[in-house]
Order: sequence, then C-alpha cells, then structure tokens
Amino acid sequence: MGAQTEQTEAAATAMKAAVQDRIARFAAIPSVSTDPVYAPFMRQAVEFLTGYLREIGFGAVTVNETPGHPIVTAEWMGAPGAPTVLVYGHYDVQPPDPLEAWLTPPFEPSVRDGRLYGRGVSDDKGPLLVALGAMEAWLAAGGLPVNVKLLVEGSEEMGSAHLEEFVEARADALAADFLLSADGAMWRADLPSVTVASRGMCALNVHLTGAAKDLHSGRYGGGVPNAAQVLTRLCATLHDDQGRVAVAGFYDGVTPPDAAQRAALSALPFDEPGFLAGLGVKAPAGEAGYGFLERNWLRPTLEVNGLKAGYTGTGFKTVIGAEAEAKLSCRLVPGQTPERVLGLLKDHLRRHCPDSVEMRFEEKPGGAHPSLIAEDHPGVKLALDILGETSGQTARCVRMGATIPIAEMAQRVLGMGTVFFSFSTADEDYHAPNEFFRLARMEEGLVAWTRYLGRLAEIDFGKHKEAAE
Amino acid sequence: MGAQTEQTEAAATAMKAAVQDRIARFAAIPSVSTDPVYAPFMRQAVEFLTGYLREIGFGAVTVNETPGHPIVTAEWMGAPGAPTVLVYGHYDVQPPDPLEAWLTPPFEPSVRDGRLYGRGVSDDKGPLLVALGAMEAWLAAGGLPVNVKLLVEGSEEMGSAHLEEFVEARADALAADFLLSADGAMWRADLPSVTVASRGMCALNVHLTGAAKDLHSGRYGGGVPNAAQVLTRLCATLHDDQGRVAVAGFYDGVTPPDAAQRAALSALPFDEPGFLAGLGVKAPAGEAGYGFLERNWLRPTLEVNGLKAGYTGTGFKTVIGAEAEAKLSCRLVPGQTPERVLGLLKDHLRRHCPDSVEMRFEEKPGGAHPSLIAEDHPGVKLALDILGETSGQTARCVRMGATIPIAEMAQRVLGMGTVFFSFSTADEDYHAPNEFFRLARMEEGLVAWTRYLGRLAEIDFGKHKEAAE
Repeated sequence: MGAQTEQTEAAATAMKAAVQDRIARFAAIPSVSTDPVYAPFMRQAVEFLTGYLREIGFGAVTVNETPGHPIVTAEWMGAPGAPTVLVYGHYDVQPPDPLEAWLTPPFEPSVRDGRLYGRGVSDDKGPLLVALGAMEAWLAAGGLPVNVKLLVEGSEEMGSAHLEEFVEARADALAADFLLSADGAMWRADLPSVTVASRGMCALNVHLTGAAKDLHSGRYGGGVPNAAQVLTRLCATLHDDQGRVAVAGFYDGVTPPDAAQRAALSALPFDEPGFLAGLGVKAPAGEAGYGFLERNWLRPTLEVNGLKAGYTGTGFKTVIGAEAEAKLSCRLVPGQTPERVLGLLKDHLRRHCPDSVEMRFEEKPGGAHPSLIAEDHPGVKLALDILGETSGQTARCVRMGATIPIAEMAQRVLGMGTVFFSFSTADEDYHAPNEFFRLARMEEGLVAWTRYLGRLAEIDFGKHKEAAE
Repeated sequence: MGAQTEQTEAAATAMKAAVQDRIARFAAIPSVSTDPVYAPFMRQAVEFLTGYLREIGFGAVTVNETPGHPIVTAEWMGAPGAPTVLVYGHYDVQPPDPLEAWLTPPFEPSVRDGRLYGRGVSDDKGPLLVALGAMEAWLAAGGLPVNVKLLVEGSEEMGSAHLEEFVEARADALAADFLLSADGAMWRADLPSVTVASRGMCALNVHLTGAAKDLHSGRYGGGVPNAAQVLTRLCATLHDDQGRVAVAGFYDGVTPPDAAQRAALSALPFDEPGFLAGLGVKAPAGEAGYGFLERNWLRPTLEVNGLKAGYTGTGFKTVIGAEAEAKLSCRLVPGQTPERVLGLLKDHLRRHCPDSVEMRFEEKPGGAHPSLIAEDHPGVKLALDILGETSGQTARCVRMGATIPIAEMAQRVLGMGTVFFSFSTADEDYHAPNEFFRLARMEEGLVAWTRYLGRLAEIDFGKHKEAAE
C-alpha cells in the first residue's frame, strides 16, 4: 500500500491546477444559505457538487431534500474489510457583506500572492474540494483504500438547521468508524494542529418596536419610547463590568479551567500581544482573569453580532426609529446546551425590557452543542502523524472557539468521534470580507488527504473499539 | 386696503391648482442636503426657485454660495414707509429612507384623499410655495402691501450649517421689522396655533473601532473587543433609570417648569393617551415626573437616532464587527447652548469609553440654540387673529419640540423676533416615510398669507419698538 499511496500522492499533486480551477468555479456560485435571496444559487451549488461526484466515480449520489437546504450524500464502498469513514463538508457560504470592503468581487474568485480570494474558498469549498481531489486521485488509480461515505450539507452557516433530524433518520446508512471533517480550519498557518474541541452556539435576533412609524425627534422626542435607546440599555445588561456574562444561570454547569489545562495552553507557542496587534486590536478584552486562548477556547461568550436602528446612512437624521434590532449569539462550552442558554437569555431580556416597547425574538434554527474528542483517538493520532510529515513540524492538539455542529451531532446521534482535517486556516477571513485560501495549503492538503486515506487502511477499528471498551 | 386684500385673497385662491402643481414639481427634485450623493439636485432646486422668483417679479434674486449649499435671497422693496418682513423658508429636504416604507415613490408626488404625498411637500416646499403664491397674487395685482426680503436656505435639515455666518455678514441687507417664517409646522390640524418657542439642537455621531477588520465570532469571540457591545454599554450610560439624561452638567441652567407653565399646558385641549395610541406607542416614556407636552416642549432630551454595527442584513451572521456607530442628538431648551452640551456629551463619552476601542466623533455642523418670542409681539397677535378668522376657532400660542435654527439666529444675530406662519402640520410625517401636505391647509394658507401681508401694512413697528423700550 505504501508504494501505491506514494504514486497516488504524486497523481494528486499533479492535479493541483485542476483542483484550484474547480474551487474557483465552485466559489463563483453565491450559495449564501442564510439569506433567501440566494436560494437559486444553493441549487446551482448542489448540481455542481453532485455532477463532480458522479464524474469521479462516487455511487449513490443523492440530493436529500430537507425543509431547509438539501443535503448531498454519496458513497464508495469498494474496500470490504477496510475501515469506513464518514467525510463531512458543506457547500453553503457566509453572506458577503460588507461588499464595499472587498478588494475583488466576492463571487469572482481571483489569485493574488499565492492566495485564492473569494467568498467560501476557505470555508468550506476549498477544503472540501481538496478532500475530494485526493479521492479523485485514488479513484482514478483504481479505487479508494478505505470505504467512504460523504455527507455535504448546505446549512452549516445557519447552524446546520435540519441536519440533526436527517442524521437521526439515516443513522444506519451513515454508520462509519469515525467522522473525518473537511471543515474546521486549522488554528494557524505556522503550527500544524488537530482540533479536538469546538464550542457550541445559539443565536437570537432581538427586535424592539417603540411606535407604529419613525417619528421626528423634535416633534416627538422626549415623550415617546426610543427603541434604539431601549435596545442599548437592554444589551448593556448582558455583561457585568468584568466582562462576565450577566445572564442568570449562564455559567451553570461550566467548569472553570484547571491548573493543568491552563498550563497546557501556556505551553503553546502563542504570542498574544502580537496576535492581537495583528488584528488591529488595541488592548485585550473579554472576561476578566483569563488570557486570549482561555477566553476563546475554554470559556463561553455572549456577543452582539449586529445592531440596526433608526437612520444608518451617511450624516445625520433627527429621527426616532420605530424599530431596533440586535443580533446576539453565544458560544458554548461543555456543561451548556443551546436550548437552555437560549431560554436563559430570553428570560433575561424579558425581565429587563421596559413596558414601553414591544419585543420580538427571532431564533436561529439549529443551535449547536459544544464537542470534544479524545486526544488518543487513532484518527486523531494519524492526523497528527501525517501533519508532522507534510509540514516538518510537530503537530499539536488544539481547541477551537468556533462551532462545528457536525462534531457534536456525530458524537451524540451517531456515536462517533470527529477528526478535523481541513487545510484552511483560521486567519483566512472566512466570515469577513476578502476571504482567501492559501494555495500552498491546498497542495499540502492534497498530499495529506491522499496519505491519510492510504494509511487509514492499515488501522483496525474493530480492535481499537474492543480495547476501548 | 381691506377691499384690495379681499380681491387679492380671491385671486390667490383661484391660483390653488397652479400652486399645487408647482409644489409637486418642486418636490420632485430630490434636494436632500445631508447626503452628498444628492448634490446635483440641490442645484436643480435652486434653479427652480430662482426662476420662479424672477418670473413673479422679485428683484435682486441671488444665489449666495457658501461652503455648504447655496442660500437664495431676493427682495421686493416697493412699499416705502410700510413695514419690512424677512420671509424665511428652505429648499432642502430630509433623506427618504427607509425607501421600502413609502406607498408611492418619495420623489414622485401624488395626491390621495386630499393630501399631496412626497418628500418635502410639508417640510418645507409646500408651505414656502404657499407663502410665495400669496406674494405672486399681490404682485400680479400691482405690488406687495409691505416690503419683503426673502431668505431661503438649503441646509435646514443639516442644522442650517453656514447660515449663521451668512446672516452675520449680511445683517444690514437683511434688516427687517421681524422674521416671518414659512417653516415650522402647526402643532395640530384641528387647533390653529402660533408657535412661540422651539428647542435647540446639537448632534454627534460616535464611531467606535475594535479591530482592523470584521472577525469571526467563534475564532476570536471572547478575546477581542466587540465594538457593538461596547457601543451599547456606552449609550446605556447616557440616561439614568428615571429617563433623565445622565451626562454631568446637562441640566445646568435649565429652569424646571413652574406651576403657571404647567397649568397653561394642562389647559390645552390635548388627549395624551389618544395621541400616543395614534402613534402606535404602547406606553408613555421619557423623563419621569412629566407629561408628554412638558417632555416635548419644555424639557431637553438626548436621543439615539441611529445604530449601525456588524451584520445588519436578514438572518444571522456570527461576526464581530470592526466598527460600530451611534447617531446621537440633543434637543435644547433656554439655559443650554449647543456648544456647551456637545462638549459635555463628548466629555461623558470619553470618560465612559473603555481603552479597548478607538472612539471618533463626527459633529453635526451648525448646532441650534433654543428660541422664544413674546406672546404679545404684534406679528404674533396678527397671526393669531388671522388664524382665528380663517379657521373659525380661537388660535393659541404653543411651543414646539423641534428646532428651527433661524428663529434663534434671527433673535441673536439680527435682533428680530420670529413669527411662525406655516400651513403644514406636525403630523405630516416629514421626517418619516409617506410625508404629506393637506391640500385644504394649502388653500387656507394662500388666503391667510395674502391677508397677513395686507393687514401687516397697517402696523407701525416704529411705534411698537418705542413702546417696548
């Protein structure tokens, strides 16, 4: 198998121009899941993906309708006796706003300085097509060394709405030794790592209405409720002066990091002041008593993701806006569930909202639980080994502050761990303007995924399971 | 003079269709002063206005350039020995946002149910052309009964920026017995009134920056400053729990209303619960211990006119926006100046802003002082008389919560009082979508202005001045 893996790696590497071109074409489709205006492009992305899967030899390529966006599944089961992996990715992308901040149009991918720029190139169209490119190389060489089931959703940027019910209903068909995720960017470009934990999430848009229409601030001001003002006072109750979330019960069940955890984080080569300065951040901020990695990896948060009220154009307008909106979201850690935290947050807001305004909630569907995989899982160890080989550095286990609902769902619903093996990087602006994907990581990813699949064939998951029991 | 006034009133009434058509054509020009994108239309509005003034016989029609928008002046001085009035109006309008809330396009005026709809028809293009229509009728009949100087600015909706320096420089040329304003809507459609006080104003946009770019709320959240969150906390410091402005020194110099003032307000026929319900307001709001009219006419305010931060589109986006903006404005009462209040506000914000974000101020040019005219001023008394005649009801002296900087400026710079004689009404949505102007008030205004100018010729301002000294 070693020789064949080497040959296939060479074949995969030779495909790199084709893979890059395919990523650019896939990313040219504005498959923004969260805004209904993009609905036709969601279908177009599905057709692009399924066409490619059929072309390279996947079977049972299926567009599974859901009440939200379709979920694409496919499989190649031609390696009897070998392990089976469930490979995960998503074809939807974040909204491109603010458009004016992009140096090149978000949906016209273009290369600058060894980077491919465009919405979705890093999250997750690039990494997904890297994984599939490695599989294409194996399939072209006669077949995959392991059995692969594919699960590619279109609602990841909406908190994987409807994925859980789908996975529950298809638990048998999706059975595998573990989940291998093409999503979940690597922490840093200069430090190979495997992510073993991710935070959960829940989100809530809060809409306040103070009057039936916008009112002149002179003619009415002082004597009518100002929804924008009420909103700021309401949002200000969400944290205390120490940056702690002030929602009653929010931290219930959350274990503060112990000395060993804090020591492990301190041991990572991480220049916090340099990191923050690189983001243009003037001073650290957040929950008092913690450093950046603790705040981001180990602690839950409540953030204001958007504010919109009254006049938002250039200059001045002396108006009292009838409506005001705050977009809130929480990142969750073990001990918290999205349902409970959302309930606490709504209770808090109801308790603090004055009678003078109407309050309406818009919940983000599909909140995500936090997730965790053992650092000695064979899939994790294989990933660390291969990353060490391709990068020439020691790869580390790290956590992530972001959310990949699939990992929690795989654990809870399918009973399998998740190994994150994505070749995008956390600094690639994938929820911001000018998202990019490093082409060098694309090439490294093609080799690494090819090798991972080859080496995986040698692991006996039956034995491992027994040993673990 | 009585017979000629009657004939001229009939002639003015006969012009009503032409006046309505002229208002519609003037309002079709989107002369939004506050947004530079509309700049070409400001010029177009100036041309429309000056063309009309020349056509009806005004002399010295001049487009006075300023660092902002031009100020139009003109005069007709053919009544030696008669009083001279300085007539004021403005040709700029509020921004039309939110566009989607208009039932018909803001810049395509149209009539429904006896109302003309369109941006600017009520504030101030309609009332201005009513005043000029009455003058046209007098001029067509041989001449005005009094001397008229016209001052029509293009920056009223920007706080009359550059008007003060212009008025100061031209104080001699603008000399008159008093200022007669075609701007300053009447309080109510069912109660004729003359406004004797208006609140001043100052405004400040506050921009916060937390990072060099928008950041993913999972990858960074918890450990970087969230500008939106900081903004809400900052805005929440502006008021106390009783709705009082919490900016230190804000109320210095402000006299609380005395028993007589409160009694006079209580005596006005005003159904506060019905009024608020008509606005879609659920419950009264504002400074504790006052009723609506006291809050709006006698007390100063600090309002949030706009909030913009992070993601403001449909649905959800887990982003930490790099920037956040709040648009703030204050309405001022006697004892306050825009300069001092703006200074106090900035001091307050600087004191309460955490180090983790950068704060930048954008001041609205041309803050306005509050104004007040004596209720026994002969120009006020004449307005009350004529309104009583045209409406068949007793007209009252009232105050207004809004700001007409010209009144304060006329007093302080030109040493003259201001009589508000506008036939628009405060409920005509002129800072909101679906602004309208009642056509019946247009007709009443044509008669009233014609009569006012005729009757004004009988008043000896020389005598009045002496008596007052």
